[in-house]
Amino acid sequence: MNIPGSDMDNDKAQYISVKKIIGGEMTNIDDQVAVEEPLQIQLAYSTANGRMQKNIAVTMRTPGNDEELAAGFLFTEGIIKNRADVYEVQCFSSDKNRVLVTLFENVNPLLNSAARNFYSTSSCGVCGKASIDAINVSPVFLNNEDSIRIPAYLLHALPGLVRKQQRVFDNTGGIHASGLFTLKGELVLIREDIGRHNALDKIIGAAFLKGQLPLNQTILLLSGRAGFELVQKALMAGIKIIIAVGAPSSLAVELAKEWDITLVGFLREGKFNIYAGWKRIEL
Amino acid sequence: MNIPGSDMDNDKAQYISVKKIIGGEMTNIDDQVAVEEPLQIQLAYSTANGRMQKNIAVTMRTPGNDEELAAGFLFTEGIIKNRADVYEVQCFSSDKNRVLVTLFENVNPLLNSAARNFYSTSSCGVCGKASIDAINVSPVFLNNEDSIRIPAYLLHALPGLVRKQQRVFDNTGGIHASGLFTLKGELVLIREDIGRHNALDKIIGAAFLKGQLPLNQTILLLSGRAGFELVQKALMAGIKIIIAVGAPSSLAVELAKEWDITLVGFLREGKFNIYAGWKRIEL
Repeated sequence: MNIPGSDMDNDKAQYISVKKIIGGEMTNIDDQVAVEEPLQIQLAYSTANGRMQKNIAVTMRTPGNDEELAAGFLFTEGIIKNRADVYEVQCFSSDKNRVLVTLFENVNPLLNSAARNFYSTSSCGVCGKASIDAINVSPVFLNNEDSIRIPAYLLHALPGLVRKQQRVFDNTGGIHASGLFTLKGELVLIREDIGRHNALDKIIGAAFLKGQLPLNQTILLLSGRAGFELVQKALMAGIKIIIAVGAPSSLAVELAKEWDITLVGFLREGKFNIYAGWKRIEL
Repeated sequence: MNIPGSDMDNDKAQYISVKKIIGGEMTNIDDQVAVEEPLQIQLAYSTANGRMQKNIAVTMRTPGNDEELAAGFLFTEGIIKNRADVYEVQCFSSDKNRVLVTLFENVNPLLNSAARNFYSTSSCGVCGKASIDAINVSPVFLNNEDSIRIPAYLLHALPGLVRKQQRVFDNTGGIHASGLFTLKGELVLIREDIGRHNALDKIIGAAFLKGQLPLNQTILLLSGRAGFELVQKALMAGIKIIIAVGAPSSLAVELAKEWDITLVGFLREGKFNIYAGWKRIEL
């Protein structure tokens, strides 16, 4: 767990001994893999019977920006609504796989039921719902009509701007990124994680903690596919434009159409597909 | 939801109208996306107070082989152990997003607690655990010493055999596959799903329902990355050799080493990396 020249990413990639086979020849090398570790997200809040501390979720994530991840997760899951509700978010040097979000007195987290427990693997967004009804989406921000227009050529510049800063991917080939851009295509924030949904929760959590939501004047770039949970999280943050390098799913397209989100997929050299909200892309 | 010439995959890919932009020119086309829909997994079993029916999990999956998925999920999660425990697995024409697994009288499913609920998105393997302790792995099959050896050249043939049958991927570009092979490299089974863990649960569920576990004389091919949850599921099924086209995670490597599983990653033309259990690969 030691990457020369990159203090920031020390926890995100890990050196291991690998037997590399090329053309039938084996060599022993030290290679890097993306770190995957469980993060326990805990919530402290008040009840009629006094203060309460509860395990809300375990997510398999790449360490780093865990405060953002916890805040983003709790927000995109609808458990907390406002920055002003959060007293503090704590990581612990004694236990790096735990983060505690403490709410102010009088703030009631929206835990659907006591039975709602989350466990999320490295590619899982939302966990803890035992019935299909629980998947229903209720965004925090009103979906006001907007007149956002971005030129098509601008999209093609985005992946390069993210790739330039995607150090963990370069080293491991096994990690996703989310990038947040202004409507002019300037990179605002990039987060990498072994789970796509975690990378996005970190982006949204960072904005949440800075009181910058909604993100309705931004463009979101996803390095991989766009499944339902990613569009749902973007919707919660008020994001109107989602650009995926990979394929969307049927349910992602449906959700984007329902909430008037622009959804672009298969962004490649000189081409892309618009699955929903094409009015915002100007040719 | 109509794919010419492919009855089998009718539910797996869906035609939608897409605006395709190539070199600044827009055309309207009908293109296919991988179908993502929630599947509710229900379990019926006996308790001291009579029969009980419980919602165990919702997983975001690509429809098809839902009985296998349900059985595989319940097995790899450790909730059911033996084929002989299962009375029947039912899908419903009235509700295609529900599957009911009914256990025989006197069989107690291993539900950790009443609070254990699962919700799994399209890339999520295991859900419902609120504490890190619950991630602990306890395989069903003893990890006996084996003398399995496979020649390195055999690995390179596997992806082609899977790709040849990967029709939904060809049409949508947005779906994962798991392939099960004999130790001689003959394709036994392939399953496609928008979630990697679902494709694997379908493979394992198929074997479980046929009473073919453990799969300790097979090779598992994964079309994407190998995260913790995939190695964990393979371990539950007694699989000893996992070959991934993509990158492994740190925790996947640790788990494979701990349980003496061979883990290969980055399988490409003429090369691959061995992360664990290299003794089984002969150069």
